[in-house]
Amino acid sequence: MSVYEKIKALDITLKAPAAPVGAYVMYVQSGNLVFLSGHISKNADGSVIAGKLGANVTTEQGQQAARAVVIDLLGTLQEACGGDLARVKRIVKLTSLVNSTPEFTEQHIVTNGASSLLGEVFGDAGKHARAAFGVMQNPLGACIEIEMVAELA
Amino acid sequence: MSVYEKIKALDITLKAPAAPVGAYVMYVQSGNLVFLSGHISKNADGSVIAGKLGANVTTEQGQQAARAVVIDLLGTLQEACGGDLARVKRIVKLTSLVNSTPEFTEQHIVTNGASSLLGEVFGDAGKHARAAFGVMQNPLGACIEIEMVAELA
Amino acid sequence: MSVYEKIKALDITLKAPAAPVGAYVMYVQSGNLVFLSGHISKNADGSVIAGKLGANVTTEQGQQAARAVVIDLLGTLQEACGGDLARVKRIVKLTSLVNSTPEFTEQHIVTNGASSLLGEVFGDAGKHARAAFGVMQNPLGACIEIEMVAELA
Repeated sequence: MSVYEKIKALDITLKAPAAPVGAYVMYVQSGNLVFLSGHISKNADGSVIAGKLGANVTTEQGQQAARAVVIDLLGTLQEACGGDLARVKRIVKLTSLVNSTPEFTEQHIVTNGASSLLGEVFGDAGKHARAAFGVMQNPLGACIEIEMVAELA
Repeated sequence: MSVYEKIKALDITLKAPAAPVGAYVMYVQSGNLVFLSGHISKNADGSVIAGKLGANVTTEQGQQAARAVVIDLLGTLQEACGGDLARVKRIVKLTSLVNSTPEFTEQHIVTNGASSLLGEVFGDAGKHARAAFGVMQNPLGACIEIEMVAELA
Repeated sequence: MSVYEKIKALDITLKAPAAPVGAYVMYVQSGNLVFLSGHISKNADGSVIAGKLGANVTTEQGQQAARAVVIDLLGTLQEACGGDLARVKRIVKLTSLVNSTPEFTEQHIVTNGASSLLGEVFGDAGKHARAAFGVMQNPLGACIEIEMVAELA
């Protein structure tokens, strides 16, 4: 299956990137690498998925939020590809910033919600390096923020 | 206006990079990319701007600290360019580590103090991807630390 | 001395990378750059070195944990090099995530345990850019997590 057949089979709809909440842009390409800005967790209506893992957000809810961030990242990446995700050669790196209490130690499990979707969509090309850790807080109180580096063909 | 005319118009004086506070260097170039180390917020006399957003540092003070970090980053980047910032093709990426309380959610607004100055100095070449989030603490208690990736021509 | 003579002189034994604790891979190469996933601090038997700087882990213990992470990173990097670390042209960048209390401000000193070992092993090629900061928490409670970017020849 092609990337878009997989996205359709997963019942995912890609959106145009949201406007950045600050004086920056959502992605920059340098050579074959695309650096995507940190994307915060949002609902389908654009409202922020706020909260803290270990307090008022469960690990499973965190995984769903991480999955939602990847859908937004794919919308941005599609724009970086000039509209065609088939140009993605490799997802290189994720950095996953999980809004956590000091006691919460499952940042890696939360982040699997992001990593798994990339694997489903891109197959071997979706296998990425990553770092996941617990942060004090994210902009607008988002329960997770993820940035990504991808390589284009 | 050239980059240096803009820097002069903004009444900014660039300095040589400070000595690293550890067993590392302030930047490494690989291919066309320059990776700059995390720079912590400092006053013009080199003393650390310490404190925590949400506690004893206001959002506006944080923006000024972020701006001060960018001035230091530009001094380092100038050295990486062999003395001529006109060689900068693009500011690629910022990562902004804001020393925050658990309740503070304006890391993006604080970081605009950095992003805006890069836009003023470099114009379109200063439009960068970025991630901003709240950290538990920074080295020496700095209220903000920023790392940067830039592309040289 | 060659890299492997230095590793032997330091009485270090490299291991194959541990299996990732999630749906990702331990490194991805893109062009000449290798992006290594965040590696968490582990004992020689593979158990996690957990704890928080400023609470139940001293700065010196943190430095030893940082050194242990670099040994694991070198094992992964060796695999990325097809078995020969002599292919490493430069250690480009470290990001050091130190599990900290709000009062602990020596993340840079802890991270020197990582940076110093890279200098001992690689000499000038081991001089890297870096960022170090205090995080709320790491996966599995690890006291430190480090990610790395390296350039291959």
